[in-house]
Amino acid sequence: MAVYTDIDETDLSAFLAGYDIGTLTSYKGIAEGVENSNFLLHTTGGQFILTLYEKRVDPADLPYFLGLMDHLSRRGVVCPLPVPRRDGAMTGTLAGRPAAIVTFLEGTWPRRPNATQCREVGKALATMHVAGSGFARTRRNALSVAGWRTLWERSRDRADEVAPGLVQEVEADLASFEHAWPDDLPVGICHADLFPDNVFFLGERLSGLIDFYFACNDILAYDLSVCINAWCFEKDHAFNLTKGAALLAGYQSVRPLSGAEAAALPLLARGSALRFMLTRLYDWLNTPAGALVVKKDPVEYLRKMRHHRQVASAFEYGYAAP
Amino acid sequence: MAVYTDIDETDLSAFLAGYDIGTLTSYKGIAEGVENSNFLLHTTGGQFILTLYEKRVDPADLPYFLGLMDHLSRRGVVCPLPVPRRDGAMTGTLAGRPAAIVTFLEGTWPRRPNATQCREVGKALATMHVAGSGFARTRRNALSVAGWRTLWERSRDRADEVAPGLVQEVEADLASFEHAWPDDLPVGICHADLFPDNVFFLGERLSGLIDFYFACNDILAYDLSVCINAWCFEKDHAFNLTKGAALLAGYQSVRPLSGAEAAALPLLARGSALRFMLTRLYDWLNTPAGALVVKKDPVEYLRKMRHHRQVASAFEYGYAAP
Repeated sequence: MAVYTDIDETDLSAFLAGYDIGTLTSYKGIAEGVENSNFLLHTTGGQFILTLYEKRVDPADLPYFLGLMDHLSRRGVVCPLPVPRRDGAMTGTLAGRPAAIVTFLEGTWPRRPNATQCREVGKALATMHVAGSGFARTRRNALSVAGWRTLWERSRDRADEVAPGLVQEVEADLASFEHAWPDDLPVGICHADLFPDNVFFLGERLSGLIDFYFACNDILAYDLSVCINAWCFEKDHAFNLTKGAALLAGYQSVRPLSGAEAAALPLLARGSALRFMLTRLYDWLNTPAGALVVKKDPVEYLRKMRHHRQVASAFEYGYAAP
Repeated sequence: MAVYTDIDETDLSAFLAGYDIGTLTSYKGIAEGVENSNFLLHTTGGQFILTLYEKRVDPADLPYFLGLMDHLSRRGVVCPLPVPRRDGAMTGTLAGRPAAIVTFLEGTWPRRPNATQCREVGKALATMHVAGSGFARTRRNALSVAGWRTLWERSRDRADEVAPGLVQEVEADLASFEHAWPDDLPVGICHADLFPDNVFFLGERLSGLIDFYFACNDILAYDLSVCINAWCFEKDHAFNLTKGAALLAGYQSVRPLSGAEAAALPLLARGSALRFMLTRLYDWLNTPAGALVVKKDPVEYLRKMRHHRQVASAFEYGYAAP
């Protein structure tokens, strides 16, 4: 949750004159997204989300992120549709930052997802993977195996403060991933951060996927493994097989996994658990005490890494051959 | 700006079942208000603001605050209308906190108010003062003269860190206020915090007054002096006579000041400047470094205190006898 930048209402009105969405009637900074400043806009033309891109987003990546949302939302994926400016551009400048407007989606994200919601998110992820196939731009996943070591080097010296023995454990995993990470699985457009707070529901109907600012081209089954980690563990860290089975069945109802993809799931899930452990570890060690940002516990993901190390096959996640 | 408490969407849906405003379609934590957690709600019945009252608000004061908004909004003051529950109650409990729902007001608050907006806020304040006269409940202003010394004692030891000589300056002011504060001026319902971020406009039309959580019964001209401080100084700390004249003329177009009220304005403005200096000073000294809350500079209000000490009469604020 974060609003980093305030906006002057006269500057915003001038900015909106570049769009064909009417005049400003209200805007509120909203607690959504961690990387950027987001505002819920009301205009005489409707409701929209305005995003100011803060330092962590590379402006050179914006045509990928916004182009992807446009591509996906025109192909049956319920996600925000970027609103072009009158001159056709997808971004402008506001308060000294790159800024974009997208359509507003109704819905609420599930604080305690149930199995039905897991099935729906599995279907939506697979729909996104299929719909993404025609998207022309590409973006490397900076937070895949090659990036993990760089990230790790920034936390390693203090990692044992968080969990004794963590250094040895991560070093061993990194070495094994660098050796065994698959390079022959289907790749394509990945969301790469499809946690519950990025998925809206109206009742049990999925009403939107948001926050494509980690999207990239990577192994599709890796993206699925992110969801296994994010959706199928309980607060007490136990894996919920019913939810796993629902997620995988939902996914396979749209895009069945190959045998090789299914076989790789335990390794991919271990890797994605490490990826989120590493970013949380870095933030844990570097967020000032007293900051209003809620720090996410890296140990939650360390427990998931350990869980996946014990998993012998995708059947233990609830996988069933299609 | 603050959202302190997250809400579970199933808890919120259950909470809304106690109201007659339809079913939940969306809610976003918004960066509005400093004391409470606020959410913009969308339901099938419309748009609303949900407030969770955090520790700084005494639940015993809620009938005053909410009853006042109800009273005022039915008497021509554009302010949020509290939505009663099906059982008639104005508050319920959500996430372990007292919670209330009020109607949503369109509009944006002016980051750089102009003279027209100063005139409008003067008119709205006077309208509120007149409309408040029939309100039966009363609430003492905890942040008036008697409260200032208590507040001061909590910062005094470190006050000279913020501005050398501040201790001596505040002590002298407190002594003079305790001696000379008027007790024969008209009293009534005061907003007591009518800063620009609590006043919405649509273009130059005032569209709403919000945040009544400092409202109290106090000297009406004191409430006006809060607005003089909040609306009529420029960023470079200079007093803008055009804005002062507009504010006072707007006010007097609805409720002319008595001679005694006008004569007291310089003292009241010095006092209200001290009041905001004191709360800012306390927050300045006690907000942890790195917290995402923007600390407001107490020195801005120290400069205003000094300005008012040089003012001989209300004419220097742009006052004209009615």
